[in-house]
Amino acid sequence: MMKKWNTKDVKRTLPERLSDAHKGTYGTALIAAGSRFMPGAAVLSAIACMRSGVGKLEVGTEEAVIPYVIQHLPETTFVPGFYERLENLSFDQYRVLAAGPGREADDETEITVEAFLKTDIPVVLDAGALSKRSYQKRQGPTILTPHPGEFLRISGCEKEELKHNRQSILSNFAVQSGVTVVLKGKQTLTAFPDGEVYENTTGNSALSKGGTGDTLTGMITGMICCHENWKHAILNAVYFHGACADEWVKTKSAHTMLAHEINDLLPEVWKNLE
Amino acid sequence: MMKKWNTKDVKRTLPERLSDAHKGTYGTALIAAGSRFMPGAAVLSAIACMRSGVGKLEVGTEEAVIPYVIQHLPETTFVPGFYERLENLSFDQYRVLAAGPGREADDETEITVEAFLKTDIPVVLDAGALSKRSYQKRQGPTILTPHPGEFLRISGCEKEELKHNRQSILSNFAVQSGVTVVLKGKQTLTAFPDGEVYENTTGNSALSKGGTGDTLTGMITGMICCHENWKHAILNAVYFHGACADEWVKTKSAHTMLAHEINDLLPEVWKNLE
Amino acid sequence: MMKKWNTKDVKRTLPERLSDAHKGTYGTALIAAGSRFMPGAAVLSAIACMRSGVGKLEVGTEEAVIPYVIQHLPETTFVPGFYERLENLSFDQYRVLAAGPGREADDETEITVEAFLKTDIPVVLDAGALSKRSYQKRQGPTILTPHPGEFLRISGCEKEELKHNRQSILSNFAVQSGVTVVLKGKQTLTAFPDGEVYENTTGNSALSKGGTGDTLTGMITGMICCHENWKHAILNAVYFHGACADEWVKTKSAHTMLAHEINDLLPEVWKNLE
Amino acid sequence: MMKKWNTKDVKRTLPERLSDAHKGTYGTALIAAGSRFMPGAAVLSAIACMRSGVGKLEVGTEEAVIPYVIQHLPETTFVPGFYERLENLSFDQYRVLAAGPGREADDETEITVEAFLKTDIPVVLDAGALSKRSYQKRQGPTILTPHPGEFLRISGCEKEELKHNRQSILSNFAVQSGVTVVLKGKQTLTAFPDGEVYENTTGNSALSKGGTGDTLTGMITGMICCHENWKHAILNAVYFHGACADEWVKTKSAHTMLAHEINDLLPEVWKNLE
Ligand SMILES: Nc1ncnc2c1ncn2[C@@H]1O[C@H](COP(=O)(O)O)[C@@H](O)[C@H]1O
Ligand SMILES: Nc1ncnc2c1ncn2[C@@H]1O[C@H](COP(=O)(O)O)[C@@H](O)[C@H]1O
Ligand SMILES: Nc1ncnc2c1ncn2[C@@H]1O[C@H](COP(=O)(O)O)[C@@H](O)[C@H]1O
Ligand SMILES: Nc1ncnc2c1ncn2[C@@H]1O[C@H](COP(=O)(O)O)[C@@H](O)[C@H]1O
Ligand SMILES: [Mg+2]
Ligand SMILES: [Mg+2]
Ligand SMILES: [Mg+2]
Ligand SMILES: [Mg+2]
Repeated sequence: MMKKWNTKDVKRTLPERLSDAHKGTYGTALIAAGSRFMPGAAVLSAIACMRSGVGKLEVGTEEAVIPYVIQHLPETTFVPGFYERLENLSFDQYRVLAAGPGREADDETEITVEAFLKTDIPVVLDAGALSKRSYQKRQGPTILTPHPGEFLRISGCEKEELKHNRQSILSNFAVQSGVTVVLKGKQTLTAFPDGEVYENTTGNSALSKGGTGDTLTGMITGMICCHENWKHAILNAVYFHGACADEWVKTKSAHTMLAHEINDLLPEVWKNLE
Repeated sequence: MMKKWNTKDVKRTLPERLSDAHKGTYGTALIAAGSRFMPGAAVLSAIACMRSGVGKLEVGTEEAVIPYVIQHLPETTFVPGFYERLENLSFDQYRVLAAGPGREADDETEITVEAFLKTDIPVVLDAGALSKRSYQKRQGPTILTPHPGEFLRISGCEKEELKHNRQSILSNFAVQSGVTVVLKGKQTLTAFPDGEVYENTTGNSALSKGGTGDTLTGMITGMICCHENWKHAILNAVYFHGACADEWVKTKSAHTMLAHEINDLLPEVWKNLE
Repeated sequence: MMKKWNTKDVKRTLPERLSDAHKGTYGTALIAAGSRFMPGAAVLSAIACMRSGVGKLEVGTEEAVIPYVIQHLPETTFVPGFYERLENLSFDQYRVLAAGPGREADDETEITVEAFLKTDIPVVLDAGALSKRSYQKRQGPTILTPHPGEFLRISGCEKEELKHNRQSILSNFAVQSGVTVVLKGKQTLTAFPDGEVYENTTGNSALSKGGTGDTLTGMITGMICCHENWKHAILNAVYFHGACADEWVKTKSAHTMLAHEINDLLPEVWKNLE
Repeated sequence: MMKKWNTKDVKRTLPERLSDAHKGTYGTALIAAGSRFMPGAAVLSAIACMRSGVGKLEVGTEEAVIPYVIQHLPETTFVPGFYERLENLSFDQYRVLAAGPGREADDETEITVEAFLKTDIPVVLDAGALSKRSYQKRQGPTILTPHPGEFLRISGCEKEELKHNRQSILSNFAVQSGVTVVLKGKQTLTAFPDGEVYENTTGNSALSKGGTGDTLTGMITGMICCHENWKHAILNAVYFHGACADEWVKTKSAHTMLAHEINDLLPEVWKNLE
C-alpha cells in the first residue's frame, strides 16, 4: 500500500493563491527554533517557511537568535520573551506550530512541545523536539520529521530492522502513535496515521549536508498554511525540497549546495509545476 | 468619479532624474519605524524608500533596530537617540516624514505622529501610526495607508458596509478628514481630500504576505521626494508595488515572494515605463 | 588647460595585475571611516576599496562600526582600538591612507587627519575630514574629494563665484594649497597641484543619492594601490564610478540605484576597458 | 620528480557524491579560526569548507566571532566556549581539524594546534597556526599551507634560497618534518612527506588580495571530507581555488575579485569537471 508521490500528484494538488487573498487568508505560522550555539537552524526554517506560502511568520526563540533571523529575513516578527513567557502564551492565533530545529532536547524544548500538543492546531516536530513520548489524540495533525537516527531514538526500533523493513515499521509507528512521520533520507517516506505511506520521488545527495532538514521543516510549515489539505502540504513540501536539489545538480556540483540555497530555487521550481 | 490609474498614467507622470541633480535635489526623507520585536519593518520600508528616488534617508528608531537597517542598507544614516530626543527634534530639514511600520500604537508612536503633523511637510502614516484621530488642516498632505482592518479601526465603519461601499466610504472619509487614504488590498483605492478616487490596476496575491505593506510605505515616501506632484507620487508607488509583483509571477510562484524582493524588481520595472 | 579624461585615456593608463603578484605587491590601505550614527559610510568605502585593486584593507573605526563592515566584507581586518590608540599608531606599513566618510568634523577626525598628513604616504580626505586648513608640503599627494558644498566650506569661496568659475577657482586652490582636489558633481573636475585640471566624462544622476561619495573615496583609495601613477588612479576611479552608473541606467531607472551597487557593476565595467 | 596537477588529474580523482549518502557520510569538520579584529577569516574559511563537500561544519572561535559566521552561513554550528574549554574538549567526532585563519600565533592558537596534533585526524594549519615546531609522527596527515613569508618563518630558510630552489627546499622540509606543505603563490607547490611534489596549473593574480588564503584553507578542509584520498583532496582544492579565479577573469577584471566570491563560482566550475 505504498504509493509514490510524483510530479503528476503535485500538479493535481498544488493550491492556487487566491486573487483576493490578503496575508490573513494564509494564516500565521509559529516556529520555535534556534539556540545560542545553533542559531542558524532558526534562520533556515524561517526562510523556508516564508518562501512556502505562509501569510505571516512569528519566530519563538532565545533573544540571542533574533538578530540572525532578521538579518536574513526582515519579513519576520518575534514573540517577545518566548521562553520566559512560554507557560502563559496562547497559540490560538496560529495556523500551524513547529518546533525543534536548532534545539537540544532540553526542558524548554519539551515544555514548548507539550504546550503545542495541547492545541488543536497542526504541529510539526523536528530535531530537538523529537523524543520518545506517547501522543494524545488531537484534532490537528502531529507531524514528526526524523532522519533515520532520530527515528531509532523515538521508536526504540533497531537499526538493522529499520533498514530492511522501513515501510512497515514506519507505517505501524504512525498508526499506533496516531502521528504522521516523515522518515527523511534518500526516497523519503511519509506515513500517515491512517496507514497510508508515500515515497518521495525527488532529491539527491546534494541534500546530504547540515541544515537541509531545517529547511524541510520550514517548508512543511509554510505549505500547511497555503494548502487546504495538510497531507498534500507535507507531500508537496518533501517533493519540492528534493526537486530544488535536482535543479541544483543540473548545473552545479552536488558537493557544493548550501541548505539556504534550496529556497533560492523554490520560486521557479514551484512555478514550473503550476 | 473613480478613475483607474494605469500604465498610460504612469508613463505620463513619471519624473525625469535631472542630469545636474545632486542628492540635495531630491531631499532627505525621515522614516520612523521598527521596534524591538518588529525590527524588520524598518528595514523593509528603508530599502523601499532608497530604491524610490529619494536623495538621502534618515531612520528614526530604537537603538536596537539600527544594526538591522545598516546590514541591509549601508546607505542610510540615523537620528541619534530618536525617541529620547523626540520632543526636541525639528523636522524642517526633511522633504517627507513617514511613521508606523513595525510600531505598536504606543505613546512613542503617538508623540512621533503628533510632532510630524505639526509640520508643513508631507506625512505618511501606516500600521502603528494609524489611530482614530482628527486631522488638523496642514499645508503638506497627510497620507494614511491602511489595509481594510486598519481602516475599520480608524474610521469606525462596519466591515460589511465597507465591503459593499468601498469607494464612497473611502472618499467621504478622505474629504471629511482632509487626508489622503490608500486603502490597500486587491485593487487598492487611493482617495484624495478633494474627493477624487483612483483604483490601482496592478498587483496580485504574491503580495499577501507579511512585510509588503511596509515596503509600500517606503516606496510612497521615496516617490514623494522625486515627483513634483505628490499625488502622482502616491499613485505611481502603488502602481509599481503591484507591477513588481506582477513581474514576479511571470516566472515564479505567487506563494514564494518575500516583501524585500519587490525592491529587487523595481529598477527594471520602473525603467520599462520611462 | 582643462582636458577631458575619457575612455581612450583610461585604456591607456589602466594597470595590469602582474601574474606573479601577491597581496603584498598591491599594498595595504587604511581607511578611517564610520561612526555610530553613520556606520554605513565605512562599509561603502571599504567595499569600494577592496573592489579597486588593493592588496589588503584595514579599517580604523569605532568599535560599534566593525560588525557592519565584516557583515558586508569579511575580507577586511581592523586596527584594534583605533581612536584610543591613535596618537601612538604608526602608519608606515600602509600604501595609502583615507579618512572622513561617515565622520563628523570632530576632534577624533582632526587628530586622524593630522597624523595622516605627517606621513609621506598618499592621503585621501573626504566628508568629515574636509576642513579649512593649510597643507604642509608632503612627499605623497594629498587628495581632497569635496562636493560643491564642502568645497565652499574649505575654500571660503562664494557659491555664485564657484558656479561661474569652477575650473579656475579649483585650479588656483589646488596650486596654492599644494593639494589635489576632486570637485564632485556632474562632470567632476580634478585639479592637481601642478595646475592641470581634468573633466570627467562619465556619470549621471543615478549617483545623486546618499553614499555614492563614500564609494568614490574607497575607489580612489584602492586604485592608488594598483596604479603606478597616483594621478591616473584618481582619474580612473572617478571615471569608473561614473561608468558604473552609466551601465546601471542602460537597463534600470536612475531613481533606483543604491551606492553599494556601483561596486557590483565595477568588475565587468573595468574588464571591458582592459 | 615534480609533476603538474592538471585538469586530467582532477577529472580522474574527483569523488562522486553517493546517492544514498546522508550528512554523516561526509563527516563533520572543525575549523578553529577568527578573532576579534580578524573575524572575517573565520567566515571565509567556513563558507569555503561548506561549499567543498563536507557533511557538517562546526566552528571553534571566540564568542565575538560567532555572529559573523552565522550571518553569512546559517548552516554552521559552534563549539560552546571553545577557547575556555579547549583543554577538556575531545575531537574524535571530527573527520578533519583546521586551525589558524584570522588567528595570531598566540597561546590559544598554540594550545589548539597541540590538541589537534595529538589526534589521529587530518589537521590543516594555516596563518597564525604556522609556527616553527617539530612535528610528531601521527596517523592522519598534517597539512601546512604557508605563503612564502610564512614558509620562511617556519623553515628558517633564507628568502633568496627559497626563490631559486623552491621545489627541493619544500620537498626536503616535507620529508624531514613528515608533513605536507602547500607553498602558496603563483604555481602553488604541494609537497608530500613521501617526497612527491605537485605544481598547480590554475590561478592568477585576482587571488592576490586579502582573504584568499583563508578560503583555500576552508576548501582543503571540506575536500578532505568528500575525497577518499586526502592527497587528491588537497591537490583538487588548490586546483579549484585557482580555477575559480580563472573563471572570474574571463568576464571581470582581476583587480576586483573578493575572496568570498571564489565560492560563488565553485559550484559550476566543479560541475564542469565532473
Ligand atoms: N542522499 C540523499 N538523497 C535524497 N535526500 C537526501 C539525501 N541525504 C539527505 N537528504 C535529505 O536532506 C534532509 C536532511 O535532513 P537532516 O538529516 O535533518 O539534516 C532530509 O530532507 C533528507 O531527506
Ligand atoms: N491579493 C492581493 N492583490 C493585490 N495586492 C495585494 C493583495 N494582497 C495584499 N496586497 C497588497 O500588499 C500590501 C499589504 O499591506 P499590509 O496589509 O499592510 O501588509 C498592500 O499594498 C496590498 O495592496
Ligand atoms: N548628477 C550627477 N551626475 C554625475 N555624477 C553625480 C551626479 N550627482 C552626484 N554625482 C556623483 O555622486 C557622488 C556624490 O558624492 P557625495 O556628494 O559626497 O555623496 C560624486 O562622485 C558625484 O560626482
Ligand atoms: N599571482 C598569483 N597567482 C596565482 N595564485 C595566487 C597569486 N597570488 C596569490 N595567489 C593565491 O592566493 C592565496 C593567497 O593566500 P594568502 O597569502 O594566505 O592570503 C594562495 O592560495 C595563493 O596561491
Ligand atoms: Mg535535522
Ligand atoms: Mg501593514
Ligand atoms: Mg560625501
Ligand atoms: Mg594567509
